[in-house]
Amino acid sequence: MKRSLIAASLPDITITDPLFASYIEKVSTKLLPYQWNVLNDRLPDVEKSYCIENFKIAAGLQPGHHRGAVFCDTDAYKWLETLAYCLMSGCAREMLPAAEELIELIAKAQEPDGYLQTYFTIDHPELKWKNLTEGHELYGAGHLLEAAVAYHSATGNETILRIAVKLADLICEVFGDGEGQCHGYPGHQVIELGLFKLYRHTGERKYLDKACHFLRVRGGKPNYLLEELAKTGKDRIFPEFADYDDKYAQSHLPPVEQKTAEGHAVRAMYMYAAMADVAAECGDEQMKKACLALWENVTQKRMYITGGVGSSGHLERFTTDYDLPNDRMYCESCASVGLMMFGQRMAALTGSAKYYDVVEQALCNTVLAGIDAEGDRYFYVNPLEVWPANCLPSTSMAHVKPVRQRWFDVACCPANIARTLASLGQYIYAKDEKSLYVNQLISSTIRETVRGVSLRMELKNELLASGRAEFRIHTEGEGAPMLRIRIPRYFDGCRFILDGKLIRPAIENGYAALALSHPGDQTLVLETEIRPEWIGANGKVRADTGKQALVFGPFVYCLEQVDNGESLNTVFIEPDAPVTAHENNTGLPGTLPVLHFAGQRLQTDIAGGELYGRASYRMQKAEFTAVPYCLWCNRTPGEMMVWLKTRLPALERFVK
Amino acid sequence: MKRSLIAASLPDITITDPLFASYIEKVSTKLLPYQWNVLNDRLPDVEKSYCIENFKIAAGLQPGHHRGAVFCDTDAYKWLETLAYCLMSGCAREMLPAAEELIELIAKAQEPDGYLQTYFTIDHPELKWKNLTEGHELYGAGHLLEAAVAYHSATGNETILRIAVKLADLICEVFGDGEGQCHGYPGHQVIELGLFKLYRHTGERKYLDKACHFLRVRGGKPNYLLEELAKTGKDRIFPEFADYDDKYAQSHLPPVEQKTAEGHAVRAMYMYAAMADVAAECGDEQMKKACLALWENVTQKRMYITGGVGSSGHLERFTTDYDLPNDRMYCESCASVGLMMFGQRMAALTGSAKYYDVVEQALCNTVLAGIDAEGDRYFYVNPLEVWPANCLPSTSMAHVKPVRQRWFDVACCPANIARTLASLGQYIYAKDEKSLYVNQLISSTIRETVRGVSLRMELKNELLASGRAEFRIHTEGEGAPMLRIRIPRYFDGCRFILDGKLIRPAIENGYAALALSHPGDQTLVLETEIRPEWIGANGKVRADTGKQALVFGPFVYCLEQVDNGESLNTVFIEPDAPVTAHENNTGLPGTLPVLHFAGQRLQTDIAGGELYGRASYRMQKAEFTAVPYCLWCNRTPGEMMVWLKTRLPALERFVK
Repeated sequence: MKRSLIAASLPDITITDPLFASYIEKVSTKLLPYQWNVLNDRLPDVEKSYCIENFKIAAGLQPGHHRGAVFCDTDAYKWLETLAYCLMSGCAREMLPAAEELIELIAKAQEPDGYLQTYFTIDHPELKWKNLTEGHELYGAGHLLEAAVAYHSATGNETILRIAVKLADLICEVFGDGEGQCHGYPGHQVIELGLFKLYRHTGERKYLDKACHFLRVRGGKPNYLLEELAKTGKDRIFPEFADYDDKYAQSHLPPVEQKTAEGHAVRAMYMYAAMADVAAECGDEQMKKACLALWENVTQKRMYITGGVGSSGHLERFTTDYDLPNDRMYCESCASVGLMMFGQRMAALTGSAKYYDVVEQALCNTVLAGIDAEGDRYFYVNPLEVWPANCLPSTSMAHVKPVRQRWFDVACCPANIARTLASLGQYIYAKDEKSLYVNQLISSTIRETVRGVSLRMELKNELLASGRAEFRIHTEGEGAPMLRIRIPRYFDGCRFILDGKLIRPAIENGYAALALSHPGDQTLVLETEIRPEWIGANGKVRADTGKQALVFGPFVYCLEQVDNGESLNTVFIEPDAPVTAHENNTGLPGTLPVLHFAGQRLQTDIAGGELYGRASYRMQKAEFTAVPYCLWCNRTPGEMMVWLKTRLPALERFVK
Repeated sequence: MKRSLIAASLPDITITDPLFASYIEKVSTKLLPYQWNVLNDRLPDVEKSYCIENFKIAAGLQPGHHRGAVFCDTDAYKWLETLAYCLMSGCAREMLPAAEELIELIAKAQEPDGYLQTYFTIDHPELKWKNLTEGHELYGAGHLLEAAVAYHSATGNETILRIAVKLADLICEVFGDGEGQCHGYPGHQVIELGLFKLYRHTGERKYLDKACHFLRVRGGKPNYLLEELAKTGKDRIFPEFADYDDKYAQSHLPPVEQKTAEGHAVRAMYMYAAMADVAAECGDEQMKKACLALWENVTQKRMYITGGVGSSGHLERFTTDYDLPNDRMYCESCASVGLMMFGQRMAALTGSAKYYDVVEQALCNTVLAGIDAEGDRYFYVNPLEVWPANCLPSTSMAHVKPVRQRWFDVACCPANIARTLASLGQYIYAKDEKSLYVNQLISSTIRETVRGVSLRMELKNELLASGRAEFRIHTEGEGAPMLRIRIPRYFDGCRFILDGKLIRPAIENGYAALALSHPGDQTLVLETEIRPEWIGANGKVRADTGKQALVFGPFVYCLEQVDNGESLNTVFIEPDAPVTAHENNTGLPGTLPVLHFAGQRLQTDIAGGELYGRASYRMQKAEFTAVPYCLWCNRTPGEMMVWLKTRLPALERFVK
């Protein structure tokens, strides 16, 4: 199992898919400079970040107190990580000076013993490591480690790696079971992932051990975080956080014993991803069992069709099985990024392609929806149904923003989306000793060496347009590496044609396996038929009873007011009416089509125009236009709806 | 307009309707003794009230600090008011000693200058009148005044009236526009109603003037409550109350300028009721216009079919037009009691019967639902749809209780329901110089003197059983008083038969007007046809699109799991299928029938049992049993649903 499957290296991958390429281009040319300005508080009309200012104060370069969120250092780390991935792909080199400047600043802000978190360094040195529940020191450290590994890989910059090693070594010293060590664990997970990456990068075993330690001690009785919080008393960083419970940070049980997704969704996803890393690396069967159970619970009972997770608008958390309200949930963009990370690692752990169906679901819907076509507006919350006039504090819907925002006082999402898009290649290609894996059918090119064979491949995906994907392959060498291509869940059978000849590759773990036995050029064509289709939800999902959603390949579609008028609640679809795809000439990025279909509008008239009374109803035929959910709210803002009411007679024709 | 219409006096009214009589009997025989024990903290398994203990401490009879809610004195006042109404009807005399004991205690707790609120007297004397936003002193005073007027009327007890006058005089002194007076107004309205009742009872004009004063100065700029709160700073009684805004307590505008229902629903209803009192008493046309606008907004855009108000579970407040979610709202029992008060006063203000349609809607549904058949369990929140397993903090649904509770730390609702039922007669009969009004067709008897004619009447309502209501009338004297009988909205025409002869009384302002011209005995029979019917909601109510609710006369019906199994979300009704009424043999109080109808259950199967996928649907015929909403959760707890999905073909047959 050990290191069964690892991501291919980004420098050898180029994304050519028009939709993703346009976002990636925006990330390197607009988002990175934009976020750099935000971190430096250079934009007058954007909420202040204070991020760089805090580092300067901590570095002793200027006086002042810490401002902004306790964890806002991480905005800089994620920015740096994003830049690293862009540099690997040969873009955004003009940001290098800014990065070097930032790294020097971080180095100065780091304390002699390796400690690094500006909030405590500046104003609360006596409280270091004493409020793990709210302090986010280990969260910050985790993101720093991830950024350092990425940036060192991209540029060979030693300073950032030194900073990371120094901080990681301090954490290894401070935390542990030993006398005088802190027996705590992070209030917000991610350090586990950071330590694991640093272990992979440096080969230093103790970082892996410490990641395992945090996952082992978490959830012990008495509960460390609750006891710490009790000691903290009224001196809270988040006083509004009255109803904190042990499930919120997944400390209600040791991770290895957890079977249902509980608490804050982002914390959960980061922890589950780390659990999968550890299970694979250490061959820990118990941990693997827990990962399988958690994956099953998340994806079969607590996930939206858009790959969104976190059904509660309050505390951004998981709730109960099949509780999936469409209008008031959280579905934080970061949580879906975390779900992608979890899925990628589950595939590495099990060798099964099916996990990438969910990765694709989260990526193509919630994660892409989090950023606008211009690359400088973001969603934090990702509802499946929006009534803009009702998104108010007085309706408890203030967390649902009907339009993307420029920045947030808690700015995790924009940076998280950016680093995910910039490193998209890691979700497309992976390899092991014998094989190159194609996990996402996203148009791109790659150079890799597998089994001593150097391989170049160009993947061209035209599935939604023509049902065709083409792989132009060039190999040099005799090792006969395997090419393993994931067969997505939404394929209804497919054919493979190699240099004009129909072939029947074996299907193993959801991958079509093809030996590249002779060197030189080969062209593999994958043919299938993908049509837009209406999808239902398990009958236990009350919010979706009698409703269907329109999907086309991995993309969930939605209705927007700008195309269909207001009161989308009155729309009833007829799933047996044909859905036709049309070129998207609305100026939205990419080449995804818009979908047209005929349905009905319900008009309700109450006797005397009263609020309640005898009703007369009129169903009127209407034409509707659906656009990809990931592109919603890129035009005139308004209502949006994914799950649409279905006419029962139509439903009945579905009976087998 | 002045005193156009006043409630008949309770001692002359006896309720004979089996449903209401059973609740009223419970109020006097069970609820009053039960609540007295609760107020005295004598019940081990019930949340402590501390109410009487606080009075004892304030009275100097025992040491200690104030405990319980800042406003918990009012629980005693509402208990006393309830008892007063029971005494007027000749019941609960065994509670008299307890009442006298309580009154002596209140007298001792009242300060020499008349000040009365145990919270401040005991622990915060320096803060008296300084935190009107949170302190509830004027709220407590308002309830004390209401209780005093009722108890003095019932028993002639002078002590309680003296306490009230002393407190009212102090308030008249402390508050005003003058030099050195407090320019504030209540953070929670009700003092206006209390002062108005005391004015009516004593004839002392200054109490009316002070009520008018509070309604005049409210909502002035700068906002008194917000400025006060700013001064209070961190020293808050309700620190969790972070997002307090000027709409919360209806201080965003002067009441006379308010046109939409905003903020905390109970505060709003008490204020609107007082506005209607003042408009009628002072002939204030501007105030009347505001009342009409507010009534229209509440009842035509922001009210549930059950007469519930307050769509937001957060802060118990109004939200926006047509925002009426069925599962997560507040719909506090007290708010519907307030709506009854508002409606009663709007009828007095306008002389129109239509307001009593809403009074009846609130009474027969939300208010009755607030208390269980045994009289000692209560709902505070009144949803129209409950999924018990999901009523959790992590789903932001903790405020929705799937079963009635024994008591609450904020115990306004039980007492409010009790005083409303105990004084039900005031909502049934009213009179003016010439006429006796029958505003509710609730079986009862009354003795009154109108136009010098002494009148006895027995009203027997069998409308739901036989479409028949009978009035046995005996008059003595020559004044020919008018009998005015409200024609409810749900009548589809009706006939009047006087002593066997069909008559055609004039219909004036929604009342059938009949001159009782000759003395002696007369029998008036009202005949109509009332059938259970399916009711729809205005198309703008998104939560109810394509749904209907079953009503029978004034009673809204619902499905319960105990009769219909779980997953009520899969029920689809066919409104053209016959609905039949059957005797209710479930042991529920009263004689309201249960309703049977045939409909469908939707079964959804997703390919491979996945969470999402191609769906096959099966509609299965099923029989359903609906019970009155006001009686739900009196048997095995479970799911409950009022608004039911409707099959579209059935809908279309409604098209005219």
